[in-house]
Amino acid sequence: MSEEEAESMLLELKEKAELMLDLAYSSVIYDNREIAEEVYELEDYIDNLHYELQKLAIEDSNKGELETNEALAIIQLGNSSEVIADAAREIADVELRDVELHPIIKESLLETEEVILRAIVENQSILNGKKLGEIELATNTGMWVFAIRRGKKWIYGPDKNTTIKEGDVLFVKGPKEGKEHFISITSGKEREI
Amino acid sequence: MSEEEAESMLLELKEKAELMLDLAYSSVIYDNREIAEEVYELEDYIDNLHYELQKLAIEDSNKGELETNEALAIIQLGNSSEVIADAAREIADVELRDVELHPIIKESLLETEEVILRAIVENQSILNGKKLGEIELATNTGMWVFAIRRGKKWIYGPDKNTTIKEGDVLFVKGPKEGKEHFISITSGKEREI
Repeated sequence: MSEEEAESMLLELKEKAELMLDLAYSSVIYDNREIAEEVYELEDYIDNLHYELQKLAIEDSNKGELETNEALAIIQLGNSSEVIADAAREIADVELRDVELHPIIKESLLETEEVILRAIVENQSILNGKKLGEIELATNTGMWVFAIRRGKKWIYGPDKNTTIKEGDVLFVKGPKEGKEHFISITSGKEREI
Repeated sequence: MSEEEAESMLLELKEKAELMLDLAYSSVIYDNREIAEEVYELEDYIDNLHYELQKLAIEDSNKGELETNEALAIIQLGNSSEVIADAAREIADVELRDVELHPIIKESLLETEEVILRAIVENQSILNGKKLGEIELATNTGMWVFAIRRGKKWIYGPDKNTTIKEGDVLFVKGPKEGKEHFISITSGKEREI
């Protein structure tokens, strides 16, 4: 069914745009050019996906598989993800132009209700060797892993099958109150999730 | 200190824009005009805040309290929140124009990794009578409450001092895997968080 194809494209667009936003803020907070560059790369990907989605919505509408109104709604939701991707690029720009943020702003970005954190997985951590889906980190700690740095390699938008390894640098977002619990889990001090 | 004022404005802008986005998706998923209208109201508020932030950044720069580069970074981060607010309005538009989404799209919006849920707090729920800060819902279940409907009243962007009451309809976002646990907490079936 064709509306399923449009729907899965729309969802991918939405999730990628939101990932870009998390990455963009991380690049600014942790002064990291590599992440900012990834935001730019994702934007090219999103531009293309957005184009294909619009094309599909019109084609499906022509074939009578989508009503005009439904095609319109898909296009409008797709546009909004594209706009969010633009916002992410604008944030990554701050990093790429080497505009140094006032320390107070960086600190305060760590004081919002939902914060972005970075933590290293130590050898004795219960996360070491586990798949993200297996430990249900988000459900048990409120923290979402949206990127992992493994040596020189990056994993952007990991999924439930991604295995966490010793030395991984996890980039997560979650409630400010959950920070200490999370750090004690990655450090291995806390052995229960 | 003046950069603290700019910083707190910037954070408010960021949080309100993200709240608008959650509300906008909720309005579409739950076919709710009231929430969509709130998105429009928040946009006026954000426009004004955005204007004041830019003004303050320039004034602080003139007074030498912010370097030109820092003022620029603040303005650029503020712009990106404004752009996110635009995206939210575009999503709310889909609801306000009565464009009926294909059921498959609505369903699939509930199948993303991070989902938006709606749940009623029953009398026997352990949430009943508790403050949001007291139960640390986000840390313990992964679910963020971003809006509450209480009878005809709405609470948008509740904080840690907001008390949850029987009959409240909580609008939350969180990991798809956490859905059942959360529903059993609001229904009172599960008495431990």
